[in-house]
Amino acid sequence: MLAEILNQNRRASPLVHCMTNYVTANDCANLLLASGASPIMADDLDEVAEITAACHALVLNMGTPSPRKFEAMLKAGQAANKLGHPVVLDPVGVGGSQLRKQAAQRLLQNVRVAVIRGNASEITTLVQGSMAHRGVDVDEAEQPSPQAALELARQLAHATGAVVVLTGAVDFVTDGRAAYRVMNGQTMMRAVTGTGCQLSALIGAYVSANPGKLLEAALAAVCAMGLCGEIAHSRLAPPDGNASYRNYIIDAMYNLTPDQLEKGAKYEIY
Amino acid sequence: MLAEILNQNRRASPLVHCMTNYVTANDCANLLLASGASPIMADDLDEVAEITAACHALVLNMGTPSPRKFEAMLKAGQAANKLGHPVVLDPVGVGGSQLRKQAAQRLLQNVRVAVIRGNASEITTLVQGSMAHRGVDVDEAEQPSPQAALELARQLAHATGAVVVLTGAVDFVTDGRAAYRVMNGQTMMRAVTGTGCQLSALIGAYVSANPGKLLEAALAAVCAMGLCGEIAHSRLAPPDGNASYRNYIIDAMYNLTPDQLEKGAKYEIY
Amino acid sequence: MLAEILNQNRRASPLVHCMTNYVTANDCANLLLASGASPIMADDLDEVAEITAACHALVLNMGTPSPRKFEAMLKAGQAANKLGHPVVLDPVGVGGSQLRKQAAQRLLQNVRVAVIRGNASEITTLVQGSMAHRGVDVDEAEQPSPQAALELARQLAHATGAVVVLTGAVDFVTDGRAAYRVMNGQTMMRAVTGTGCQLSALIGAYVSANPGKLLEAALAAVCAMGLCGEIAHSRLAPPDGNASYRNYIIDAMYNLTPDQLEKGAKYEIY
Repeated sequence: MLAEILNQNRRASPLVHCMTNYVTANDCANLLLASGASPIMADDLDEVAEITAACHALVLNMGTPSPRKFEAMLKAGQAANKLGHPVVLDPVGVGGSQLRKQAAQRLLQNVRVAVIRGNASEITTLVQGSMAHRGVDVDEAEQPSPQAALELARQLAHATGAVVVLTGAVDFVTDGRAAYRVMNGQTMMRAVTGTGCQLSALIGAYVSANPGKLLEAALAAVCAMGLCGEIAHSRLAPPDGNASYRNYIIDAMYNLTPDQLEKGAKYEIY
Repeated sequence: MLAEILNQNRRASPLVHCMTNYVTANDCANLLLASGASPIMADDLDEVAEITAACHALVLNMGTPSPRKFEAMLKAGQAANKLGHPVVLDPVGVGGSQLRKQAAQRLLQNVRVAVIRGNASEITTLVQGSMAHRGVDVDEAEQPSPQAALELARQLAHATGAVVVLTGAVDFVTDGRAAYRVMNGQTMMRAVTGTGCQLSALIGAYVSANPGKLLEAALAAVCAMGLCGEIAHSRLAPPDGNASYRNYIIDAMYNLTPDQLEKGAKYEIY
Repeated sequence: MLAEILNQNRRASPLVHCMTNYVTANDCANLLLASGASPIMADDLDEVAEITAACHALVLNMGTPSPRKFEAMLKAGQAANKLGHPVVLDPVGVGGSQLRKQAAQRLLQNVRVAVIRGNASEITTLVQGSMAHRGVDVDEAEQPSPQAALELARQLAHATGAVVVLTGAVDFVTDGRAAYRVMNGQTMMRAVTGTGCQLSALIGAYVSANPGKLLEAALAAVCAMGLCGEIAHSRLAPPDGNASYRNYIIDAMYNLTPDQLEKGAKYEIY
């Protein structure tokens, strides 16, 4: 199943409009190119609606935000909705400021989001916002149990209608009903800035290239990114460190074959 | 001829003021350093005139734009003109939004540009803007024939007085009269974000370090960048991908000798 | 002594709020991760006070500035002061524009800065600003003698109360009384954009993780960064260039052991 998702992404070579932070924008662009998709980065209010109209997917990454960029995200998101382009939301550090919390709520209220990808803390913040503080009780400083993490993801999926990808010590992909747990990945990926941002960009490409297979495409992206982290890790040799690892992960995506993904993907219905 | 252009860049070590996008700014900086030049990135309206005055060349790259940055480009461009510094324009994605189209036209009407570097689609958009939609009939989605591409470049050179560098499946460098076709380069360069931006930055350095040799300096930069793409490609070994390739291209520029460039440059008068 | 500074940084794993330029933000993030600390980049006026409150140190890097970002730096700096978080100032290119000069003076007048790191030209500009042009006479185009460089650093330390790290052909670390000269480093580091920015970020982590040891922590960071430049340089083999070197420096920080730092640090009381 996953092999076909990857193949279809290489065939369709979708143009992904990334509104993203300046810290990891270069890596997101090269990761998309590695996957077979193409990136366009643009975030100004005066042009994002036109840019997004010429693309096939929109990725809203909340890192290094500003009020003007959030206005532009809203505008681009609504333009993407009108055109039926999938919108991916990466709520980077959403719990870190009122600016981000309010912007995320406004985006979720006014833009139909296809996929949300975040860590447990970010998903928690979104659930609290979406549900007006009802029924959520997760200590953000603690890693939740797998059960609690999945419950969080399911709550957000129900509240928003989006597929939710929760990544961390455990990874879950759920549309609120079906749920997959993904076991791919490598802890050293945390020592490379932006691997989460790259995954969100890849999700944008995969879901855009595979219409009607939202859950499977998101699952394939999570497996592919984690698998590349594993492949890249096996390539490390002294004195390599996190900078070499960063390059090797993108290299692995460039060389990832459908067969490698099909055989290397580790997930289970949960 | 080209060897001396490269040598003179290393001797003069020009300071290049880059007003550029945040996606590839780091690569542009490291490519300039690799070439022997030095970069300064600054794009705010309140300081660009001073910054450009302390430099030797100005590169205006239209990626990730904003209205304020375009105002700053206009101001910096006019300051550079007064001081006689060469100005290079890289009209990234100019056809993608009205903001970019109008900004490009305004820049070309108010700033004397020494070199414009873009792909066929970008050059087409500029020609259409410059010529009030007369006489141009190129489908942007199609790769033009070599003849059509050169004709485009010549039209823009005539309309603006700039040397035009059109890059893509074929590369041309022309001042509207003389024209060179460059055969250096490697298709895998398209899998690395920002190789075009890097070339534009390098053109800024080369033309600044070689006054009175605008056409030759632009030609040398195109050959040098393409040759580095070839050298870097020959260094690739499994499991390298586009991230390693990105590093190898800049490494190749760091190690490029005058003799390598002289012997490796592949171009013809066209 | 230095081994313990490094160890303590890995144990404490401080969260460093970087308000920094978009050219080298990715390298600063990966260098901090390599050191064992964690980065957060955020620079908007509407959120920086909250972001900084959740961190342990604040690094103000003046590259690619704007008036709004400087307002945000002032706000974040004052928030950090209230919370007792160390603030590091990297006055990138401060002599290059009135915008930067005035912002630096305003920051130094309104924010208590723990460490300032700059080159001789930048430190000269700050001393001139702080001392209303009294008693400073250094040609910015010339490399000052070691004695003149140290005198500059001492003057700025006295004027501001900060530990001053002056880097260049010679490196000094001084609180105005005690002074260390550091002999670590490699000239090729100048061919990699942002090694200075990375050092400033590392200083933020080290001083935050080692309260009460401001001078020693800054010294340890300067030695560690220079030593990584040496280790990375010894790893270079043809056809490596500055792009590979960039990766190797960060890799070296990832692998740097307390013992390596203790034995490899080259400094003297001056």
